[in-house]
Amino acid sequence: MTFREYLKQQQQFIEAQLDRLVPPESTPPQTIHRAMRYSLFAGGKRVRPVLCLEAARAVADFAPGVEESACALEFVHTYSLIHDDLPALDNDDLRRGRPTCHKQFGEAMAILAGDGLLTLAFQVLGQIRGAVGRRAQLVEELAVGAGTVGGMIGGQVADLEGEGQEPTAELLDTIHRAKTGALLRASVRMGAICAGADAHQLAALTCYGQHVGLAFQIVDDILDVEQSSEALGKTAGKDAEQKKITFPAVYGLEESRRMAEQERREAHRALEAFGERGVRLREVADLIVERNA
Amino acid sequence: MTFREYLKQQQQFIEAQLDRLVPPESTPPQTIHRAMRYSLFAGGKRVRPVLCLEAARAVADFAPGVEESACALEFVHTYSLIHDDLPALDNDDLRRGRPTCHKQFGEAMAILAGDGLLTLAFQVLGQIRGAVGRRAQLVEELAVGAGTVGGMIGGQVADLEGEGQEPTAELLDTIHRAKTGALLRASVRMGAICAGADAHQLAALTCYGQHVGLAFQIVDDILDVEQSSEALGKTAGKDAEQKKITFPAVYGLEESRRMAEQERREAHRALEAFGERGVRLREVADLIVERNA
Repeated sequence: MTFREYLKQQQQFIEAQLDRLVPPESTPPQTIHRAMRYSLFAGGKRVRPVLCLEAARAVADFAPGVEESACALEFVHTYSLIHDDLPALDNDDLRRGRPTCHKQFGEAMAILAGDGLLTLAFQVLGQIRGAVGRRAQLVEELAVGAGTVGGMIGGQVADLEGEGQEPTAELLDTIHRAKTGALLRASVRMGAICAGADAHQLAALTCYGQHVGLAFQIVDDILDVEQSSEALGKTAGKDAEQKKITFPAVYGLEESRRMAEQERREAHRALEAFGERGVRLREVADLIVERNA
Repeated sequence: MTFREYLKQQQQFIEAQLDRLVPPESTPPQTIHRAMRYSLFAGGKRVRPVLCLEAARAVADFAPGVEESACALEFVHTYSLIHDDLPALDNDDLRRGRPTCHKQFGEAMAILAGDGLLTLAFQVLGQIRGAVGRRAQLVEELAVGAGTVGGMIGGQVADLEGEGQEPTAELLDTIHRAKTGALLRASVRMGAICAGADAHQLAALTCYGQHVGLAFQIVDDILDVEQSSEALGKTAGKDAEQKKITFPAVYGLEESRRMAEQERREAHRALEAFGERGVRLREVADLIVERNA
C-alpha cells in the first residue's frame, strides 16, 4: 500500500468517526445540525486528525480516546473556518469549492453552528470512556491550543490587527505560531498523550508539531499567491488583497520555499528517536510541504 | 447578616474569582482580553455562579473545583450574551445599560471575544487542581448544558426559528427548557458534583435547578413586558416586537405570575431533604421570583 492509499484509508476512518460523534441531521433543532454537518463534511483534508492519530501510533498501539481527540480537533478547526468566513471577519463566499456556511444557512445560523461545534469538541473529550486521568489534560491541551493566549483565537486577533501594518518577521512569527501552529501542535500532543507518551517522547513530538505547523502555514501562504481559486477551492489572492502579513510578503517566494524545506528537515529530525514508528509522521510532513492545494 | 448582604458578599467573591481566571488586559493580544473583560465585568447578577456555589454548600463544606465551575458557567453565559446581541441575531445595542460588545469593539472582535470566553470556560475546568476524577464530568455537564441538543444553543436556534410562529405551550416549553433552563440546571449540578453529591442529592438538586430555571425564564418574560429599558439595562419590549414566543404571549400576565409562584414552590419542595443546608438555595429561588430587573 502506498502512503497515499494509506492516507485515504485513514481519512475514511476519520469521516466515519466524525459522523458517529456529531448529532444526525434528524436531531432537533435540525437546522443547526445540518449547518454543522454541511461545513464538517465539505471535503477537508483532515490534517489535524491525521496528525493526532499518527502521533499516537508513533508511541503505542493502544491509545484510548484518540478517535475522540482527532474529531474534537476537526470540530475546532471547522468552527474556526465558519466564524473566519463571516462578513465581519474575512467575508468569504467560497470554501472548499462550495458556498460558505453563512451563505448557505444565513449569518445567525453560521455563528451558532460554529459555537455548537466548539462546544461539541469539549463534550466529546469529556465523554471519553477509559483514560479517566487523561481526559482533563486533553481538554486543557485543546483549549490552550484554540484559545486567546498564544492559541488560535489569539492568532486570529493578531492577524486582524496586523492587516495593513508593517510586515515584520517578528509579527509574522507571532501570528502564525498562534493562528495555525498552536492547534497543529495540540493535534500531535493530544495523540501522544492518549498513547501514554513519556516526557521525552512528548517533547520530541511537540518539536515535530512546531515544525510541521510552521511548514504548513508557509506552504499555505505560498499557495495563496501561486494557485487559482479553483485549485484551492477558496478565494485565492485574498492575503495580498487584505494586506495580510504572509511569508511571501516578508521573505519573498524563493526564500519562503527554502524555509518550508528547512522546517520539513527539522520535523524529520525530531522523529529520529522513533525509528520505524516515526515513518508515517515523516510522510505526513512530506505531504504537507509537497501539497498543491 | 441579611440574605441580601450575604449575596453581595458572594458576588464580590465571584468577581474576584473571575478576575483571577481571565487573562489580564495587559496580556497580548490586548484587544480581545479588553473585550472579554468589558462584557464579563458589566455588572451581571452572577445567578449561575451563585447557584453553583450554593448547591455545593447544600451538600458539603469542601468542594474542590467549585470556584472554577462557577466562573466557567459565567464565561459561557457571557459569551452567549455577546453572540446573541450581534446584528445577525438579536441586534441589540444596549446590555446592562452599556453599549453591547460589538458596539464597543466591532463585530469581528465581539465574535472572537465570545469564542474566547467559551474556550476559556473549558480550559478553566481542565486545569482544576485536585478532583481529578470529576473534571471530565464537569466538562461534560457544561458542554451538554451549553450545547445544541437540548442545551443553550439548541434553545437559541428553536427561539430564532420560533419567531412569528404560532405561540404554543409545547414550543414555549421546548425553547425555554433548553435556552436558559439547561445552563441553570447545569449550574446546580456542577456545584453538587464538586461537593461529591450522592445520586439522591444530585437528583433532588437537579429537580430544584429545573424549577428555578423555569421560574427565572417566566419572570424574565414578565419583566420584558412590564419594565422600562432603563430599569432592565437592556432594550425592553423586544420580545413582542420580534414576535418571540414568551410566557405572557402564551398564557397572559396573570397566569404567568401564577406559574412562577408554582415553580418557586416546587423548587422549595425539592430542597426539603437538605434541611438547614438548603436555606440559601431557598432564598435564591425567592430572589429569582421576586426580582424586578
